[in-house]
Amino acid sequence: MSEISSNNQPIKFGGYYQPKEREVEDLTARVGPGTPCGEYLRRFWHPIMLRTQLDALPRAIRILSEDLVIYRDLSGDIGLLHKHCAHRGASLEFGIIADHGIRCCYHGWMYANDGTILETPGEPASSPHKDRYCQGAYPVIEYKDVIFAYLGPPELKPEFPILDAMVIPDDKMVPYLIHSPCNWQQVSENSMDPFHVPFLHTRVAGPQFSEVFEQLPIIEYHDTPYGFFYTNARRVGDYIWVRMHDHMVPNFSQNGAIFENVGKVRYFGRPGLTRWVVPTDDTNTMVIAWRHYNDRDDPQHQGDPHEVGVGKTDFFGQSGDRPYEERQRTPGDYEAWCSQGPITSHKREHLATTDRGVALLRRKLREEVQNLQKGVEPTRPTALNGSHIPTYGGDTILRIPANGGDDVKLVEEVSGKIAAAYIAFQDLPDTERRTAIANRLAPLNVGDTQAINPNQGKIFEFKPLA
Amino acid sequence: MSEISSNNQPIKFGGYYQPKEREVEDLTARVGPGTPCGEYLRRFWHPIMLRTQLDALPRAIRILSEDLVIYRDLSGDIGLLHKHCAHRGASLEFGIIADHGIRCCYHGWMYANDGTILETPGEPASSPHKDRYCQGAYPVIEYKDVIFAYLGPPELKPEFPILDAMVIPDDKMVPYLIHSPCNWQQVSENSMDPFHVPFLHTRVAGPQFSEVFEQLPIIEYHDTPYGFFYTNARRVGDYIWVRMHDHMVPNFSQNGAIFENVGKVRYFGRPGLTRWVVPTDDTNTMVIAWRHYNDRDDPQHQGDPHEVGVGKTDFFGQSGDRPYEERQRTPGDYEAWCSQGPITSHKREHLATTDRGVALLRRKLREEVQNLQKGVEPTRPTALNGSHIPTYGGDTILRIPANGGDDVKLVEEVSGKIAAAYIAFQDLPDTERRTAIANRLAPLNVGDTQAINPNQGKIFEFKPLA
Amino acid sequence: MSEISSNNQPIKFGGYYQPKEREVEDLTARVGPGTPCGEYLRRFWHPIMLRTQLDALPRAIRILSEDLVIYRDLSGDIGLLHKHCAHRGASLEFGIIADHGIRCCYHGWMYANDGTILETPGEPASSPHKDRYCQGAYPVIEYKDVIFAYLGPPELKPEFPILDAMVIPDDKMVPYLIHSPCNWQQVSENSMDPFHVPFLHTRVAGPQFSEVFEQLPIIEYHDTPYGFFYTNARRVGDYIWVRMHDHMVPNFSQNGAIFENVGKVRYFGRPGLTRWVVPTDDTNTMVIAWRHYNDRDDPQHQGDPHEVGVGKTDFFGQSGDRPYEERQRTPGDYEAWCSQGPITSHKREHLATTDRGVALLRRKLREEVQNLQKGVEPTRPTALNGSHIPTYGGDTILRIPANGGDDVKLVEEVSGKIAAAYIAFQDLPDTERRTAIANRLAPLNVGDTQAINPNQGKIFEFKPLA
Repeated sequence: MSEISSNNQPIKFGGYYQPKEREVEDLTARVGPGTPCGEYLRRFWHPIMLRTQLDALPRAIRILSEDLVIYRDLSGDIGLLHKHCAHRGASLEFGIIADHGIRCCYHGWMYANDGTILETPGEPASSPHKDRYCQGAYPVIEYKDVIFAYLGPPELKPEFPILDAMVIPDDKMVPYLIHSPCNWQQVSENSMDPFHVPFLHTRVAGPQFSEVFEQLPIIEYHDTPYGFFYTNARRVGDYIWVRMHDHMVPNFSQNGAIFENVGKVRYFGRPGLTRWVVPTDDTNTMVIAWRHYNDRDDPQHQGDPHEVGVGKTDFFGQSGDRPYEERQRTPGDYEAWCSQGPITSHKREHLATTDRGVALLRRKLREEVQNLQKGVEPTRPTALNGSHIPTYGGDTILRIPANGGDDVKLVEEVSGKIAAAYIAFQDLPDTERRTAIANRLAPLNVGDTQAINPNQGKIFEFKPLA
Repeated sequence: MSEISSNNQPIKFGGYYQPKEREVEDLTARVGPGTPCGEYLRRFWHPIMLRTQLDALPRAIRILSEDLVIYRDLSGDIGLLHKHCAHRGASLEFGIIADHGIRCCYHGWMYANDGTILETPGEPASSPHKDRYCQGAYPVIEYKDVIFAYLGPPELKPEFPILDAMVIPDDKMVPYLIHSPCNWQQVSENSMDPFHVPFLHTRVAGPQFSEVFEQLPIIEYHDTPYGFFYTNARRVGDYIWVRMHDHMVPNFSQNGAIFENVGKVRYFGRPGLTRWVVPTDDTNTMVIAWRHYNDRDDPQHQGDPHEVGVGKTDFFGQSGDRPYEERQRTPGDYEAWCSQGPITSHKREHLATTDRGVALLRRKLREEVQNLQKGVEPTRPTALNGSHIPTYGGDTILRIPANGGDDVKLVEEVSGKIAAAYIAFQDLPDTERRTAIANRLAPLNVGDTQAINPNQGKIFEFKPLA
Repeated sequence: MSEISSNNQPIKFGGYYQPKEREVEDLTARVGPGTPCGEYLRRFWHPIMLRTQLDALPRAIRILSEDLVIYRDLSGDIGLLHKHCAHRGASLEFGIIADHGIRCCYHGWMYANDGTILETPGEPASSPHKDRYCQGAYPVIEYKDVIFAYLGPPELKPEFPILDAMVIPDDKMVPYLIHSPCNWQQVSENSMDPFHVPFLHTRVAGPQFSEVFEQLPIIEYHDTPYGFFYTNARRVGDYIWVRMHDHMVPNFSQNGAIFENVGKVRYFGRPGLTRWVVPTDDTNTMVIAWRHYNDRDDPQHQGDPHEVGVGKTDFFGQSGDRPYEERQRTPGDYEAWCSQGPITSHKREHLATTDRGVALLRRKLREEVQNLQKGVEPTRPTALNGSHIPTYGGDTILRIPANGGDDVKLVEEVSGKIAAAYIAFQDLPDTERRTAIANRLAPLNVGDTQAINPNQGKIFEFKPLA
């Protein structure tokens, strides 16, 4: 069957001939133990839970299709063990938390947080059991109210990566965790897709963030040793506004500022969001992220940290808890990614120019997975000078009014210069990097950079398309 | 294992030896794209929804195992598209309805109701995408408050069939739609099974329609160019009452009058019900039908159009919304067909004499499906003289008292004559057909045909069997 | 992958290398028709329901993965038939109960309780249908408020086994039925596992029955012609307390007294519980049991028959109706067996010394199933002298204070002597057996056997482990 008629035209009312393919990209969609992408994902630290979700009782969770139990022992340490006791399989969610480790309810076997069997109290003293095997265990790290785990081979455990955006001075970080009932790629790809913003978030059903986003952005993708970033450039009145967006494979991304605020020069602003997309299993996914709050990137305090936590965040359309009809009228990111179904099939898609970011991401992910299949362990960015891993996400705003020439070309050139500055100084320590970037970019400004543009955020008249 | 003992007797308490076969008749039970029966069903127009179910928002529906979105655009036209956008797969249930067509929420691609891509607004003007493929689309027709669709090859799209029963003069048609959680054949076969009526609807748990139905009917099946019909004859006092029942493969049927009213001569009465049994998928089915209201076939106005609509109708036992114990005490059609399970296995059945209609229907359906597998497209009745397709459903009542001879033979003969008259004049335009039938049958009446039988509907004393 | 490192040590944080096997022991876990264990289970009478669950309407039930309908006909007899009518498959849960048997709602076919087709009322009088086959039927027996069924080959139907514990003089028997959403073996094995008692029921989260159970018991397993029993011996002050526990394959067991009461000599006390573990299907199980109430085994009347019935019993932790967090804090048997998952995999377990009973049971069950596969029908205990089948379950308590020597050895020896007495007199009629046992054991007592130990049940200070 073909969806094209003999005269090479698409067939009207041709649903019958359309591909009904549901073939799944198993190479990158499946995340369980032993699957190619599951193995690849097991080479990274992933956030799995917020600190506030862990109280005095163990908690059954599911990560990368593995059933696990997490608990904080009475000494304050966190254990993350396979759910079923190595002895007779009772779930450790019914275990009794100990000073150090947890005790299975059934026969009282006691496990350390590293999986060591500390006691087999019904067995004779000479029993060799506890020296012969372990309870399955994974290391965890608690960092700024988020619990991270590493589910890979222990001998390959990487350093826990501290990113520069995790240690921004004078920055308040508040984490959230939101579940989506779909494959992780659908959620992850959304942030390598800057072209959904003018449509989903602005033109299609009214502005969800700012009218400014109605403008089609000028995008350039950059592949660095620290991952992808792309520049997202728009003219706003007398300003050229460039948002940088990070995307490190497999599942990390950072946005620019959540709430637009163009009307003042800014150099090397930092991300509004530091985010991981973590598979629960093949058809369930968690977004776990920190929102950043600081005066520089959110000068008007439009963000609201009290709205951020388990199941919720302070910006539009990230969860499924709105009424169905309201979600139909004003769909958000959640509707865009979940409504592709439990696992979408790339075979039925038709990627276009605007999907270049998605295509790059998919290719990179496939390469990395295939490399590991061949035995090549993934390379991971390492901290600079023992300090932090540089990222790019955040906004730079320069005062460069249109000069009567080709403005698209002007915006493109400025955007390219900003990206070049970010890259040139990426190996500098954080504050030096900002200073170096600012020094290089400052001369590009034209006119009074202190003047506040009174039209900030209101320059474009909203023209709904539908 | 055998269910028969060595002495050729059925084995008492022999559940162990009974077949526990659950093999499904895939040839006719499966309805998805590419299945033999799914292909066959895709050669016909099917009702899919009531007009009243379609409001200002798109609606996700499932027909023949395909996920679709239906909407009425701002111009009033209806679009029926594949659920997932051809671009990146977001569901069009979150699309924004336009003047003509619908726009995907994710990247703003706009589709016409025939699937044509009207806009790809994020793409460069020169983008060839919108001329290269289509969104999957199906044609729809709105007719008397019911929406029909055709899901087959567009080049084979048949005329929308207008049946005579859809244009009865002075007739009010009110549609209903009721879901059953079982395979479509279980629902469909019920109406080729006249012998369930004296049992399920009358003797077993008391009369649900009329005590008259307690009588075992005399049945003859007729296969015509317009489909099956059968005569369903009973003596009621001085009258011989013959109900005609239509059944066109794959899934169309018409009953006689819903509420019995024997006691006056009637020629060529018309159906109480014009009905399709439409598969949602292999294990979910919709009955979509019109109830007919007119003075001739329901002179006492026993029907109640206000009880007819989404999920309900005005006669007994068609839906699952009664309490379980009540449904156990007085089971109706819904319990008979659903309780066979999600998909019944014909292998565990034992068809008997009374199942001749079901057997005929199954054979016909198998033949048609197999013909299509061999490349023979199904024949479909076409309208007479560019007008309507004749059907047979409805009641004829003649005054012919028992004459002291073999009354079963008399009823049989009269029934045969009535069927012959229906067939003889089937190619006449509707009103001429009725006149011709009446003229031919009138001489068969005996005595005063105007006298109203005071016992109408109450002739038989109800004798519960259990 | 291996869970052991090259230096032969278990790998810390080695969850990645732990087996994630989920292979199911199909030989003994699957219970449907035609499966090896399903066939084996079909050689025995099983309780399937309580008398009080059967009222004036038929009831759809599921036993050994078969869908059945059970009803009490108007004469008071019980019928147990295949759910789907042999004619056209409608469920007999919508059948109409008759004086003798049940009538299908759809076409009025009438079935006797043995499956015989009594009427096919729509068929001609000469129809041979009702003599050619049967509705699947199984024999049932109602005994002391419990309904039992036999689902095997009728020609191999065994005698209904009357156990001595079912006819204890002056004993009140109250049945209960509780559902567990897991494989039957997980529930069944729990009672061949005496070593969970000191942990799950005592040390881990506080005493659920008695502090006395904190003590690790001295266990001996005995395999007799009537099934397994094991001795469960503890010292309690001046007494040696030996509980006998029965376990007959496939699924029968009896405990000692539910509520401990050590402080007075008792000979051949009888079980607190007569219990079957009956598979609904592979992942759902019913415990159906009688609780026994009599002055001898529960002299303080600690049991409460009013708490015993459908979904409940009068001792701790047998059902899932407590709040989740409460079940986490004080898990019971229900949590231990259900939390292993729908069907556990023995492959991921690590059996130890204390699992000897479980290992014995599994081996015995495998042997019996494999014997049947080879055509060897299972042997079943038969009644003695046409009377009852002897069992062992129940408590014997002797006054034998510690004598300053090796007390573990003393307890072991006494326990062995008690078991020997039970076995020696097992073929005597019930009351003679008790007398003979008492006569043989009485000389073992030391000192004043009438003195009540004031510390009964409070001898051990509870030392929580966690």
